[in-house]
Amino acid sequence: MLVSRHAARRLTRISRRLIPAQSITSQKRVESLPKGAVPLCFRYRPLSTGTMASVESITQSLTGLSIQPVAVVTHDATNATNWREALQASSSAPQSFETLKTMVYKPKTAKTATPVPLVIIARESTEVNSTAVGKKLNLKDVRVASEDLLNEFFALDKNSLSPLILTAETYPKVTTVLDASIASSSSLFAVRARSSTTTLFLTGKDILAYLRTLQTQDAPLQEIDFQALMSEGQAASTTQAAAAPAKKEKEDAKIEGAVQIAIGIKKEVDFAGWYTNVLIKAEMLDYYNVSGCYILRPWSYSIWEVIQDWFNVRIREMGVQNAYFPMFVSAKVLEREKDHIEGFSPEVAWVTRAGQSELEEPIAVRPTSETVMYPYYAKWIKSHRDLPLKLNQWNNVVRWEFKNPQPFLRTREFLWQEGHTAFLTKQEADKEVHEILDLYRQVYEDLLAVPVIRGVKSEKEKFAGGLYTTTVEGFIPTTGRGVQAGTSHCLGQNFSRPEMFNIFVEDPNDPTGQAKAYVWQNSWGLSTRTIGVMVMIHGDNQGLVLPPRVASIQVVIVPCGITAKTTDEQRKAISDKCEELANVLKKAGVKAKADLREGYTPGFKFNDWEQKGVPLRLEIGPADLVKNQTLGVRRDTGVKAPIPLADVTSAVPNLLETIQSDMFKRAQDTYFSRLKQVTRWEDVVPTLDEKCVVVMPWCEEEACEDDIKERSARSAEPQDERAPSAGAKSLCIPFDQSRWPPIEPGKTECAACGKDAKRWTMFGRSY
Amino acid sequence: MLVSRHAARRLTRISRRLIPAQSITSQKRVESLPKGAVPLCFRYRPLSTGTMASVESITQSLTGLSIQPVAVVTHDATNATNWREALQASSSAPQSFETLKTMVYKPKTAKTATPVPLVIIARESTEVNSTAVGKKLNLKDVRVASEDLLNEFFALDKNSLSPLILTAETYPKVTTVLDASIASSSSLFAVRARSSTTTLFLTGKDILAYLRTLQTQDAPLQEIDFQALMSEGQAASTTQAAAAPAKKEKEDAKIEGAVQIAIGIKKEVDFAGWYTNVLIKAEMLDYYNVSGCYILRPWSYSIWEVIQDWFNVRIREMGVQNAYFPMFVSAKVLEREKDHIEGFSPEVAWVTRAGQSELEEPIAVRPTSETVMYPYYAKWIKSHRDLPLKLNQWNNVVRWEFKNPQPFLRTREFLWQEGHTAFLTKQEADKEVHEILDLYRQVYEDLLAVPVIRGVKSEKEKFAGGLYTTTVEGFIPTTGRGVQAGTSHCLGQNFSRPEMFNIFVEDPNDPTGQAKAYVWQNSWGLSTRTIGVMVMIHGDNQGLVLPPRVASIQVVIVPCGITAKTTDEQRKAISDKCEELANVLKKAGVKAKADLREGYTPGFKFNDWEQKGVPLRLEIGPADLVKNQTLGVRRDTGVKAPIPLADVTSAVPNLLETIQSDMFKRAQDTYFSRLKQVTRWEDVVPTLDEKCVVVMPWCEEEACEDDIKERSARSAEPQDERAPSAGAKSLCIPFDQSRWPPIEPGKTECAACGKDAKRWTMFGRSY
Repeated sequence: MLVSRHAARRLTRISRRLIPAQSITSQKRVESLPKGAVPLCFRYRPLSTGTMASVESITQSLTGLSIQPVAVVTHDATNATNWREALQASSSAPQSFETLKTMVYKPKTAKTATPVPLVIIARESTEVNSTAVGKKLNLKDVRVASEDLLNEFFALDKNSLSPLILTAETYPKVTTVLDASIASSSSLFAVRARSSTTTLFLTGKDILAYLRTLQTQDAPLQEIDFQALMSEGQAASTTQAAAAPAKKEKEDAKIEGAVQIAIGIKKEVDFAGWYTNVLIKAEMLDYYNVSGCYILRPWSYSIWEVIQDWFNVRIREMGVQNAYFPMFVSAKVLEREKDHIEGFSPEVAWVTRAGQSELEEPIAVRPTSETVMYPYYAKWIKSHRDLPLKLNQWNNVVRWEFKNPQPFLRTREFLWQEGHTAFLTKQEADKEVHEILDLYRQVYEDLLAVPVIRGVKSEKEKFAGGLYTTTVEGFIPTTGRGVQAGTSHCLGQNFSRPEMFNIFVEDPNDPTGQAKAYVWQNSWGLSTRTIGVMVMIHGDNQGLVLPPRVASIQVVIVPCGITAKTTDEQRKAISDKCEELANVLKKAGVKAKADLREGYTPGFKFNDWEQKGVPLRLEIGPADLVKNQTLGVRRDTGVKAPIPLADVTSAVPNLLETIQSDMFKRAQDTYFSRLKQVTRWEDVVPTLDEKCVVVMPWCEEEACEDDIKERSARSAEPQDERAPSAGAKSLCIPFDQSRWPPIEPGKTECAACGKDAKRWTMFGRSY
Repeated sequence: MLVSRHAARRLTRISRRLIPAQSITSQKRVESLPKGAVPLCFRYRPLSTGTMASVESITQSLTGLSIQPVAVVTHDATNATNWREALQASSSAPQSFETLKTMVYKPKTAKTATPVPLVIIARESTEVNSTAVGKKLNLKDVRVASEDLLNEFFALDKNSLSPLILTAETYPKVTTVLDASIASSSSLFAVRARSSTTTLFLTGKDILAYLRTLQTQDAPLQEIDFQALMSEGQAASTTQAAAAPAKKEKEDAKIEGAVQIAIGIKKEVDFAGWYTNVLIKAEMLDYYNVSGCYILRPWSYSIWEVIQDWFNVRIREMGVQNAYFPMFVSAKVLEREKDHIEGFSPEVAWVTRAGQSELEEPIAVRPTSETVMYPYYAKWIKSHRDLPLKLNQWNNVVRWEFKNPQPFLRTREFLWQEGHTAFLTKQEADKEVHEILDLYRQVYEDLLAVPVIRGVKSEKEKFAGGLYTTTVEGFIPTTGRGVQAGTSHCLGQNFSRPEMFNIFVEDPNDPTGQAKAYVWQNSWGLSTRTIGVMVMIHGDNQGLVLPPRVASIQVVIVPCGITAKTTDEQRKAISDKCEELANVLKKAGVKAKADLREGYTPGFKFNDWEQKGVPLRLEIGPADLVKNQTLGVRRDTGVKAPIPLADVTSAVPNLLETIQSDMFKRAQDTYFSRLKQVTRWEDVVPTLDEKCVVVMPWCEEEACEDDIKERSARSAEPQDERAPSAGAKSLCIPFDQSRWPPIEPGKTECAACGKDAKRWTMFGRSY
């Protein structure tokens, strides 16, 4: 109850500080506001109707019903797409919650009759079939309501809807349907306070209670089990699926029951929601109040440290040295390479002010460091003896993307390494490009158990200003999308040529000693995107699944089988054995931890560590003590098997290696099974729609690539607001062409345009 | 000559692109400029007289004399203070150069007579005694010329002076004196092109040649040996110092002769110039074209990596976990803690634009992360079981200082670690504050061989918004200034209290379970300043001196004694032995490198590695081969001693440890000898002027501290433009008070104000 009181107080504070936007008309007026007042027009976009004052009246009326919101959060105006993110970014929101969706439909009525809208309140993840609902309620031709109707009935826009739009006044005028699974849920639900900028958090029971107070004999509250409704529909349409409903129900129940501690959203149903939930519940990441920026918590940052340590050793062997260049770039330097800057300029963040002073010239935050570094390469490289120059830096870069951000995959600030090297000859540069690419492959395959395919990017997709780009391409089976996982570029002499950074040495092979040799350059980068790809591929409906080689805890040891009857002596013996086992394993080089927390059940601990993806759980109970064994439970498969304590120092490391390689093999089998050889255009979109990647003979012409993107987008299934573009682009031209039949020059045709094909090329939707 | 031609071409390009500022009056006019044109008013401040067009005429006239500038650099308007930095930041400037100073004086003349100004051209580091010059040339009462006179004679301001102001027209009207050491120098000199925004680079001989073309019988060029002039002056005034001149001359000659490869500026003479030269020649750092930002090259970054690795191991043992928080902070969050933000707001860099879009609200780049992190601490800390929470991050922060930047010591962007921890009790927080402080002491003393004194900061000097600040204070003997080397703050409950970030748990010790316990917090940080302090303390006139524990190369092995007569077989035997020795040492854990570069003499290599500070050089020549030994040469002392090859795996590591501890002991002896116990105000300023730190009984009152700063600044010696404030501030109140006589309450008086003293406190000038 501490929280509720706190929330209520804050609410009063908030409403006291708010001043309606209308009262402010100029900067002058703003300055004369009372201290601490926050002008509405700055923090909140104008609402179509309804002001913040209504928040106080809402909570008052809830309090009258003995309903206390668990929390109240104010945020920027949100829509269906960014609401969850805004809430997760708030420090006042509960850690675990679901969002509600409230949809308004208009059934067909006689033209002269007053319409009776249908209001459906459901969990975000519930699949709502409005036609089926209409059928069940005997409503005809149910259509999504217009904005006009929303305005007429509720004086609100679609981004302010929630059960709270229903009041003693409005409820009798509509038909209300509540997702039955809400009523019975112990989850917390985010509920809009008749506003796109304020959200309350209520339990399912509270929502049910609220709606019940409104219901009358004439307007009963309809509770519908959408899962059952859908099953009924399926059962009706297909007689073969008789067994399905029961099985499906059971599956859902499993997720529902565990909602407080497990992920709560199914990977297959709502991938984006599942992904963010896994990240948050596994304590990998937290949302931050600057959009597109995220907090990397120790559980994910430690993975980055493993990658850093591994990669540093390898590149040091190659003679690469770490350094640090400033994060700021002057406009003049940034804009030196035209193609390059064109690729980045829409995303550059500019510092224009320091303290109270405007800077004379705005300064960019680096989106990458080519133009930061190369003026100094020109200065440092004076002789062929200064070559090769190989520097790398681990840093943060900023690309102010305006597309929907996604943790790890598309963020405005991210961490990465960027290597920048200069050579006397193209041959040396080429060799390094491939060596680095293979290190990237190893980071993915050997550390993260994520299969990738190596290849070269098309001209359209290559690095802006470079000569060619090699890439490791990953694949997210759940969405069927490709993901660019790391790139190693040969820049050629484009940045070194005289009009650019003018990086040259006297050609040591020129007998006159007069000729200049412009250096050959590479740049290569790998980012924290690695972590996101790993989560997407291995995670399941219990949460994260970590490959052992990157897990900061590889083995967790949990004492079990302790009951009220267990003697103190026995408890101590079990607890001591857990601790001893952890120490034995640590000495054997295993990252082990005994979870001896008091006051938590073994079940809670199991869930906790499963959510966090610890690869192996070892249980020790009284029976194990007697048998001198421990029960091992694999996170990846759930398979349980006893391990004699005498063998742990060899058996556990071996088991971890088995888990690592099994995880990789499963992921690779999936990837390869979704890599579809296609030779006719008609098969391209259907293959993409089956969540596969197309590999087809291709002409390698840019116009053809543009055309493929457009044609595949046009015919694609209707897309989720949150999803990246539905058009297919070239992912890479794989180095290993031997998987597919030889391209016959002059004979094999491009599957898209029919011209001469050059190589087999992977096309797919992508991140 | 390649460079010269290039420079000349660039010059033509530059002058073509320049359009006089006068021709541009409005933004509209700017937009209508020809493409590629750079409006003068944007890039160059208006000159008092003389336009950029003169640059072309200057180089043309030089070319007429067969003098080719080695480079031409344009930069923002500079004065004596920031000229060198601006040049070093330019990628077109030569790597090694000296700046020239050109001073104009007016000797006393009859009121009716036209004055004949005295123009003295000298090296920046030459001490010019204008009175002595006047005496030598029979000029009376030589005074610095007024700006009016500069305008009258040269139509220039004092920031545009150089030998090039002397032309066929002006030369006959003045007396010209040239520092004789320039004429004979093979150094490159930076020479202003009659402008504060353009600099040419000429050799000493070119400068002499240029001036000689101007000289006439009536107006001969006076060459003066200022060193000898000063010695004559000294010899005349003191008869005891008879032996001094010769010795001094020899010393100077040594530096002069080695100017191409050694530091070129004496540590004792021009500390700031020496410091930047050491950093650049040792390849620790390079200047960058955004002022106050610097490039950390591998030679310094590797030291940072050693510190990171060492510190990570220690804090992990303490249960601290690494994480990463975003670099951006919203204004609202940043400004939440008033005292705290007051301390930082004048230095905050603001991002206001992304791509072409203005941001709705400006976003700050973190100056530190308290307000970034603590909203999430409030979210994550829900129970006393979540305590302690201990996070650390290695990142970059920005403090847009407007004071003079100095590499490593005061930079606008810097790298550091910041730890942020939360505890249930003050006792735990206090304990950690001191544990961390001791780790900082160890980083300095055990890794960097830099002595520090631990203590607590005064109220005035503590961290803005914290409860108390502990510090390790270092000392730079050459300047006599203290340097804050690392701080560990207890924030108390100031950030956790309800009006702030509201970070609390239910008090586990409250039987009712109702009481809230607000957490106790610490924050602690150590930055790349560590590296600058180390350089300043250990470096000498040969360059950097690295303590073995942080050197990325600890031992360099150089083949010696190879002459024209040496057979190929002997050469190979020596070279093989060097390589073998390096491998033997590497296997013994020593970071060794054999320098087998072809085409460089051993002397060049010795200088090269001395400049870079490698702790130990091992030489192997034909005689060593015979004796089965190597000659060891210590970088810190220059002491040479043979080491039998059979003993190297023990002797070399032992010697490195000896070097490490000798370096520390010497630095500590110096520090302690400059820590002066003072009890009377009269002694304070004279003690500071002797480049010492004062330790005095102090009342610990803020008004008294303000007063001390003001009084000590007033009476201080005239200060260098580049130097930080001359006023003394409290450095710390040392924890170990036992070094000084006990303070007797009610009896011992504050040395500054006479009130009751509390503790012995260190006061000093500082960085």
